[in-house]
Amino acid sequence: MRTLRLTIAYDGTDYAGWQFQPDQPTVQQTLETALEKVTGQRIRVLASGRTDAGVHALGQAVRVETESSLPADVLRRALNANLPDDIAVLDVTEVPEGYHPTSDVVRKRYRYVIHDGPVRDVFHRRYCWHYIYARLDAEAMHRAAAALLGKHDFRSFETSGAERATSVRTIFDISVRRGRAGREGLDAGGVSPGHCDVAETGAGEGGYLPHAEREECITIEVEADGFLYNMVRAIVGTLVEVGRGRRPESWPGEVLRAMNRRAAGPTAPPQGLFLVRVEY
Amino acid sequence: MRTLRLTIAYDGTDYAGWQFQPDQPTVQQTLETALEKVTGQRIRVLASGRTDAGVHALGQAVRVETESSLPADVLRRALNANLPDDIAVLDVTEVPEGYHPTSDVVRKRYRYVIHDGPVRDVFHRRYCWHYIYARLDAEAMHRAAAALLGKHDFRSFETSGAERATSVRTIFDISVRRGRAGREGLDAGGVSPGHCDVAETGAGEGGYLPHAEREECITIEVEADGFLYNMVRAIVGTLVEVGRGRRPESWPGEVLRAMNRRAAGPTAPPQGLFLVRVEY
Repeated sequence: MRTLRLTIAYDGTDYAGWQFQPDQPTVQQTLETALEKVTGQRIRVLASGRTDAGVHALGQAVRVETESSLPADVLRRALNANLPDDIAVLDVTEVPEGYHPTSDVVRKRYRYVIHDGPVRDVFHRRYCWHYIYARLDAEAMHRAAAALLGKHDFRSFETSGAERATSVRTIFDISVRRGRAGREGLDAGGVSPGHCDVAETGAGEGGYLPHAEREECITIEVEADGFLYNMVRAIVGTLVEVGRGRRPESWPGEVLRAMNRRAAGPTAPPQGLFLVRVEY
Repeated sequence: MRTLRLTIAYDGTDYAGWQFQPDQPTVQQTLETALEKVTGQRIRVLASGRTDAGVHALGQAVRVETESSLPADVLRRALNANLPDDIAVLDVTEVPEGYHPTSDVVRKRYRYVIHDGPVRDVFHRRYCWHYIYARLDAEAMHRAAAALLGKHDFRSFETSGAERATSVRTIFDISVRRGRAGREGLDAGGVSPGHCDVAETGAGEGGYLPHAEREECITIEVEADGFLYNMVRAIVGTLVEVGRGRRPESWPGEVLRAMNRRAAGPTAPPQGLFLVRVEY
């Protein structure tokens, strides 16, 4: 038996999340179906964590235990040939037999993209939260987020219902910035696919989103040793209350200390969220 | 009666093109339905030109003749509230009564995006041609395209079936470049939404498309006084033959002079094509 770690990307729009559900398209089931076609075996895969309906992944990690002797790269190509266009296997790596995709996680990084311009972005609507109520103050959000850095009990930012031994997690990095998420400053750098680069299309006068409006995008990045259920989305919903000026910059820290989900802001919608990468 | 020019953007993926067709979703019909909801009138709109199924627009121009007295900006907002997420009205402008969206066109600009990396881009698959057969030589394509500049009979690049008085058109600008379509060099500049900026997501090791592969995108821009049916897609299909090394750089010029559609390369698929803007 070989143990493999697949790194996969998916557009979560048309899935009821990662985890298998009867009568609903899920990423897990779609991947298992492709694996069966390629290897002839029914394989139950395990991811680094579930993603909810509509949430995307740039680099989800998935454990596959298989008898197949196909070389890793052949397997990757064969899987891609048997997967729909909205799921891609980026990498297949042999890992030691004891590898556990959930409990072995050292760090995970998420990105959340908000578009706060007045006109919806037809090309990125599936990949951002179009926040139409106010232009957000990204710098205030960034300062407010600093209170969440470090090791804390994050139960204020947890939707109940998921199993976990503890609600203590450590956030290593959290940032909020307006505009393109450049390589500078961010650990891995880069630009979100959900990022509203379409604002830069510059179709000219009377054209698509003028250049002056290219700064209509806010990118929030959070890296931690693990995340509670809906934690990033609850953090984003809380920071947005600061960004629109309804709460002071000190508020997210108060929410954290309250240790009560009702203290926090609403859960931000799923389509702005990307699982960026998982480190082991 | 007022005459208005709407500038609209749309993601063409889920439409059978611009033009009304019975029992098929079209951009025209969807816009007319929204106009009827907002103004109470059935209005037949006219665009600067049809776009085919799957083709996108960053700045399509549409004429609306209406009795409505709604101010332009109120009309814009009301239309956006009544349109699906994949169509957006960017601008509403009052124009003189004689305005004709087709015959008054002075210049039109199209963009075509090719992704020639090995692994599909799950977030841009709807907005580019994923060309998997070869890494293309964008510089050779750019040099070859220069033969098409100026006033020519472009019938070699026309799919038959559309009405037109003549197949003579003038191309003012044509460029092929690898990587992000930066502002430099291009008239309007900017980045295509179909552009594979996702290559820059840099999810890090084992993550989404490493930085080294960020140059997996080719952007072709063409500006002309008008276009024949499928002209941009036939030009792209022809340039790609040069880019993959099957034809010499002199070939597109020869195709032009042949004045025979069968002399040209295949028609590139629709999802990579964007109507960028229309100038009057």
